[in-house]
Amino acid sequence: MIVSKFGGTSVASAEQIKKVASIIKADSKRKYVVVSAPGKRFEQDLKVTDLLINLAYAALNGENTEQCLHAVIDRYKEIALGLNLELLICDVIEKDLQSRLSMDHSNKELFVDSIKASGEDNNAKLISTYFTSIGIPARYMCPKSAGLVINDFPERAIALPEAYENLQNNLQNTAEVIVFPGFFGYTKDGLLRTFERGGSDITGSILAASVKAELYENFTDVDSVFCANPKVVNCPVEIEEITYREMRELSYAGFSVFHDEALMPVYKAKIPVCIKNTNNPSAPGTKIVSSRKVNRRPITGISADSGFSILYVSKYLMNREIGFGRKLLQILEEEHISYEHTPSGLDDISVIFRSHQLTPEKENRIIKRVTEELHAEDAHFRHEFSMIVIVGEGMNNSTGLAARAATAIARTGANIEMINQGSSEVSLSFGVHQSNENKILQELYQEFFASVTIG
Amino acid sequence: MIVSKFGGTSVASAEQIKKVASIIKADSKRKYVVVSAPGKRFEQDLKVTDLLINLAYAALNGENTEQCLHAVIDRYKEIALGLNLELLICDVIEKDLQSRLSMDHSNKELFVDSIKASGEDNNAKLISTYFTSIGIPARYMCPKSAGLVINDFPERAIALPEAYENLQNNLQNTAEVIVFPGFFGYTKDGLLRTFERGGSDITGSILAASVKAELYENFTDVDSVFCANPKVVNCPVEIEEITYREMRELSYAGFSVFHDEALMPVYKAKIPVCIKNTNNPSAPGTKIVSSRKVNRRPITGISADSGFSILYVSKYLMNREIGFGRKLLQILEEEHISYEHTPSGLDDISVIFRSHQLTPEKENRIIKRVTEELHAEDAHFRHEFSMIVIVGEGMNNSTGLAARAATAIARTGANIEMINQGSSEVSLSFGVHQSNENKILQELYQEFFASVTIG
Repeated sequence: MIVSKFGGTSVASAEQIKKVASIIKADSKRKYVVVSAPGKRFEQDLKVTDLLINLAYAALNGENTEQCLHAVIDRYKEIALGLNLELLICDVIEKDLQSRLSMDHSNKELFVDSIKASGEDNNAKLISTYFTSIGIPARYMCPKSAGLVINDFPERAIALPEAYENLQNNLQNTAEVIVFPGFFGYTKDGLLRTFERGGSDITGSILAASVKAELYENFTDVDSVFCANPKVVNCPVEIEEITYREMRELSYAGFSVFHDEALMPVYKAKIPVCIKNTNNPSAPGTKIVSSRKVNRRPITGISADSGFSILYVSKYLMNREIGFGRKLLQILEEEHISYEHTPSGLDDISVIFRSHQLTPEKENRIIKRVTEELHAEDAHFRHEFSMIVIVGEGMNNSTGLAARAATAIARTGANIEMINQGSSEVSLSFGVHQSNENKILQELYQEFFASVTIG
Repeated sequence: MIVSKFGGTSVASAEQIKKVASIIKADSKRKYVVVSAPGKRFEQDLKVTDLLINLAYAALNGENTEQCLHAVIDRYKEIALGLNLELLICDVIEKDLQSRLSMDHSNKELFVDSIKASGEDNNAKLISTYFTSIGIPARYMCPKSAGLVINDFPERAIALPEAYENLQNNLQNTAEVIVFPGFFGYTKDGLLRTFERGGSDITGSILAASVKAELYENFTDVDSVFCANPKVVNCPVEIEEITYREMRELSYAGFSVFHDEALMPVYKAKIPVCIKNTNNPSAPGTKIVSSRKVNRRPITGISADSGFSILYVSKYLMNREIGFGRKLLQILEEEHISYEHTPSGLDDISVIFRSHQLTPEKENRIIKRVTEELHAEDAHFRHEFSMIVIVGEGMNNSTGLAARAATAIARTGANIEMINQGSSEVSLSFGVHQSNENKILQELYQEFFASVTIG
């Protein structure tokens, strides 16, 4: 059995939903369909989720909600008309929205969650209605009756272990295609709560793990994942197969296909994921697997991201002081700063982290504590760095790879501020000044991909 | 004023002590002479300190001490004869040793300390007697009356802040040359305690900081510090000038000129240090300074050491977990393991440390805790690694240096297991398998030194 999740652009219009139906028809294993809310039909378009957020805040502010409500209903009407559906389904959707709007407003967050989640929920109802109308036996499944239970507020919404059991019991061995709305679940007290944005991926991943799917398909609007950011590198190579840990290491900019937590359930269950294009379903897509055979290319991808800062700390005889590094990390932890790397010399250590976590007050507090509590001789911040990461399962046995990468960077004239290669050797990362990021990415692409493609 | 410290081989015989006298005569600024106990005169020789340790344990074990005692006295007698001194000085020394041997044996460590320290103490008395005999106005200074106070047992012996004040008050503006024994001080209760082995360097460093010397000379038996281990690289380049932090980063094997803590007092006082050869005092030696002008060679030295282990830990979404690295380091801290580097990927982290800190029980405990408390998916140790460190103040502005180093390593066919370059850029370190250490050191020397020397 296959779980197929369709993103916002894949279900944005009648035309797109017809493609979804063809895809489901094409393989009888596709028994579980997880859908997003209708997304953008064109660049300047508004997603239904954004229309719903407008609606929710209009209601909370006591404004007239009529206009906002109709903006939502009209999207569904247009889709229903395009699919030759009776407009009865739109009445159902309107009634559902009215009922949500009349809910208790006292907990704003839960109220907004309920309105937002209607986007996926009503789209699932509409799509299952459409499937039935064209002869695909289908059934809308409400996450509440399916048992997708999540934890309570104020923690971040996460599926509880029993959710997997419930979903397995309620969804396995289905004759019909199950159409399941993404993005939300219910607490044990029956309160609706949404996952983070992009949370339909999580729903699909949870479902795939629950029903022990042989494959989790993630349909979007690209043929596959590129080995480098196509905004920086011209027509980069497409990745056919990538391991979970390669995918994770590449999760900097240009690789934001998945929110990283979304893959956790399938990762744990070792279910392969395939990223495919709704608009070109015959393209093989990119497959994410637990392990793979290493091909002739040692590098799978190159990723880069800007907006990093470095905290540099030095103290004579630092490495003789057991606990120095731990105490430094503890100070950062108390300031809620999560870090990427901690390269070190004998008497100095640098901590690299995303700059957005800093404020001028935090910077001052940290410098003060590091100086006073750890008796550091020097402690200062540096900003505007980029991290460039080269990733590949094949790196492990490839002599001279670091030399090739560093030589390619040297060709650009850029200085390397930091190098980090762990013992896992799945990734090699370089810290460079932000202004050099793009030219380095291009040069590394040339070094590791361009020549092989030509050959 | 200059503080000149003479190591064991520099004061091992009458012939050597005559060289010391010439050195002191040659510059009237050399007012403070710190001496070790007589060291080895030839490869198979025994140091006086080792003879004294034998003596101390013979006494503790209730054995006859006569033979051990005479082995010590004979060394001094031979020196005194060679220097044409009256043998009265040897009677002073023998009485001193008899008096130490008759001390309370109840605290073994303090008893052994007292016997050991007599090596430096009596040598200082002998040398000041010799200086006077040849017309150098000189005075033996007892560390107790000079005020070299140190902390109490069982902590490691360290000079107390007031020691610096006392020494300044008691030693500044001296007309005579002060001959000061290295290696020991006294607690506030008047108990003698020794610094760690090699502790005469510490005494010299404390004295130089106390009297605000313009230079701390450290006389030994080599012309200068080499840029690489001469046991591995044939006739390596001699270092003329090196900064404190370069010296520290190079403190792996082949650079063990100083015990690293010995330089702390002069480092703090920014007093330059010069390592010179007693047997060739006209050679310029190697100068250790706070800062220096970078010359055309970006690299100052290459150092390597074996006997490292790697703890590898991986967990999906590790980098989203604030505190993971800190908790891991805390577990190691609780096992009293001090580490060198912690290279990391997004989902893995490696900790590199000296293998001698491990036991099979510790390994098991650590793996168990990392797996159970941190819920790591994989945690294992790997052994037999070497760390190779390239050091230079000039690295900071030298584009392509990491590329040159990595390319040189690749030429040897060795795989790089780890790379670590911090934001300070004074050092760049590579983790490699132990079996590749020497060939890599040779190749890196070729890359960074051989060509420049020829040109």
